[in-house]
Amino acid sequence: MTLLVALTGWHVESWVERFARLLPERRVVHLGEEYDPGEIVYAVSWKHPHGIFRRLPNLKAIFSLGAGVDHILEDPDLPDVPILRVVDNDLTNRMSEYVVLHALAHLRQFRRYEAQQRERLWEDDRYQPAAADVRVGVMGLGVLGQDAARKLAVMGFDVAGWSRTPKTIAGLITYAGDDGLGPFLARTDILVVLLPLTEDTRGIIDHALLSGLARDGRLGGPVLINAGRGGLQRQADILRALDEGVLAAASLDVFESEPLPVDSPLWAHPRVVVTPHNAAMSDPDAVGRLIVRQIRRHEDGGAFDHVVDRSRGY
Amino acid sequence: MTLLVALTGWHVESWVERFARLLPERRVVHLGEEYDPGEIVYAVSWKHPHGIFRRLPNLKAIFSLGAGVDHILEDPDLPDVPILRVVDNDLTNRMSEYVVLHALAHLRQFRRYEAQQRERLWEDDRYQPAAADVRVGVMGLGVLGQDAARKLAVMGFDVAGWSRTPKTIAGLITYAGDDGLGPFLARTDILVVLLPLTEDTRGIIDHALLSGLARDGRLGGPVLINAGRGGLQRQADILRALDEGVLAAASLDVFESEPLPVDSPLWAHPRVVVTPHNAAMSDPDAVGRLIVRQIRRHEDGGAFDHVVDRSRGY
Repeated sequence: MTLLVALTGWHVESWVERFARLLPERRVVHLGEEYDPGEIVYAVSWKHPHGIFRRLPNLKAIFSLGAGVDHILEDPDLPDVPILRVVDNDLTNRMSEYVVLHALAHLRQFRRYEAQQRERLWEDDRYQPAAADVRVGVMGLGVLGQDAARKLAVMGFDVAGWSRTPKTIAGLITYAGDDGLGPFLARTDILVVLLPLTEDTRGIIDHALLSGLARDGRLGGPVLINAGRGGLQRQADILRALDEGVLAAASLDVFESEPLPVDSPLWAHPRVVVTPHNAAMSDPDAVGRLIVRQIRRHEDGGAFDHVVDRSRGY
Repeated sequence: MTLLVALTGWHVESWVERFARLLPERRVVHLGEEYDPGEIVYAVSWKHPHGIFRRLPNLKAIFSLGAGVDHILEDPDLPDVPILRVVDNDLTNRMSEYVVLHALAHLRQFRRYEAQQRERLWEDDRYQPAAADVRVGVMGLGVLGQDAARKLAVMGFDVAGWSRTPKTIAGLITYAGDDGLGPFLARTDILVVLLPLTEDTRGIIDHALLSGLARDGRLGGPVLINAGRGGLQRQADILRALDEGVLAAASLDVFESEPLPVDSPLWAHPRVVVTPHNAAMSDPDAVGRLIVRQIRRHEDGGAFDHVVDRSRGY
């Protein structure tokens, strides 16, 4: 009845220590130590080495340490056990903090006024649009997208959403699928990307999509905010769109390759805000407690929550 | 039945033209042209020359072109006619945009990550507090303060408010008066100032007040956001508080003297965000329509809205 902590790139010891504290009755092991494949009943993953879960005959579930599961589904050799996402209010709130902050920063020209401050220049722009004059489009209407859309609307933005499959959400204009994408983009001044990374969405933020954004908006051109996954975007297309004027500005928290390489032109682009994939860092203790709660409920005969649909990829 | 446009420092011609268009049946004059004092029935003011309204025997009301009326009440020689504020949803929304933007920018360390971007540095801070861990205190619970408090709470902040006289507001912890100020400040990590400027509030944001802010917060020290009036603050005290560590950072839209003098140390202070008194610029057409609506209603025998209480000063 052992829990396997299968991480790369994270603080393995701190997670082992955390789960050992939260599950005192259970053995907790990591990939660097000896264990019997037959003893492992649950595994937590962050970018686990491919193929390792296939060799665990008694595995009952794989938990992602984050909201995304693309790092698990990339493994071509997964066993047929439930894969579970973390759905954490703290992470949801932090993601919406990021999205609302960056939408307002573009609306209110935060960087323009910073530049004026450096020049000791007192000059206002009487033609700043109000939030109500700016149309925000949220791509991806899961828990994160819906929360961001709701908070953007409270701030006064004119918000719509797009999802792959049709969704009805109280108070939100929604578009869906390939047919809905064109009309959705055509009414979008600020595009907020909170899609899961799947085979369908990889590279979706390309030049063609950006060219479909509204040309008649009040911001001097459309703005992109990607706080989802770097694999959703084509950075060469984003740079081309910025240089052509197809795109006015971008806030990017995620990148095709992370850390963003030091020689990327995005770092120094005057109209790009780069943040180091920290839009929504969850509290590790909160994530640990959510996973342990799922394990205990399952042991008591309950069903798992937030099970990934492998055919959709999220 | 003439309207007098009594402005200094604004675009007088554009306001005369606007009111002439909105009130085609009425003569509209400005201070630079000939008029009979007896013909003036209504006046609109933005920093009017003191004493001029006293000389208008048939004046029925004075309209401020903005939410604040301190610029009118500073005139020691005002006639005893109603003074009316503009209460404009557009202005309220814009003020809340500013307050939420700057609260989130301090929470999420916008400037730290901008500095990292300039250095092409990929480094996150796993200990960023969530909004729920940060206590915001809104001073001033009029229309602007209440709207800002509500939107800050939607974003997840732990919000309380303070006003001179006790107020009960659904969902908001409130403090009032001199007795409530100490406990209010002691639980405030981000202080948002949206007070009217009156004899009671002039200079209220001084070193003693800033020294009362929370010392046990999660932001590395308290933060000040003043989007109310420059006369509320003592800039020398703010600078001293920043240098002593009593205050960690500030976003200031208003100043004791405006434009902020070129030699002010606030411009170059690394922990101060300076904006040119544009937190909430109203749409002039919307303001014009609101004033004309009040005039027409009064002509039809209705009561004025948003009449200033001179004893309170707002």
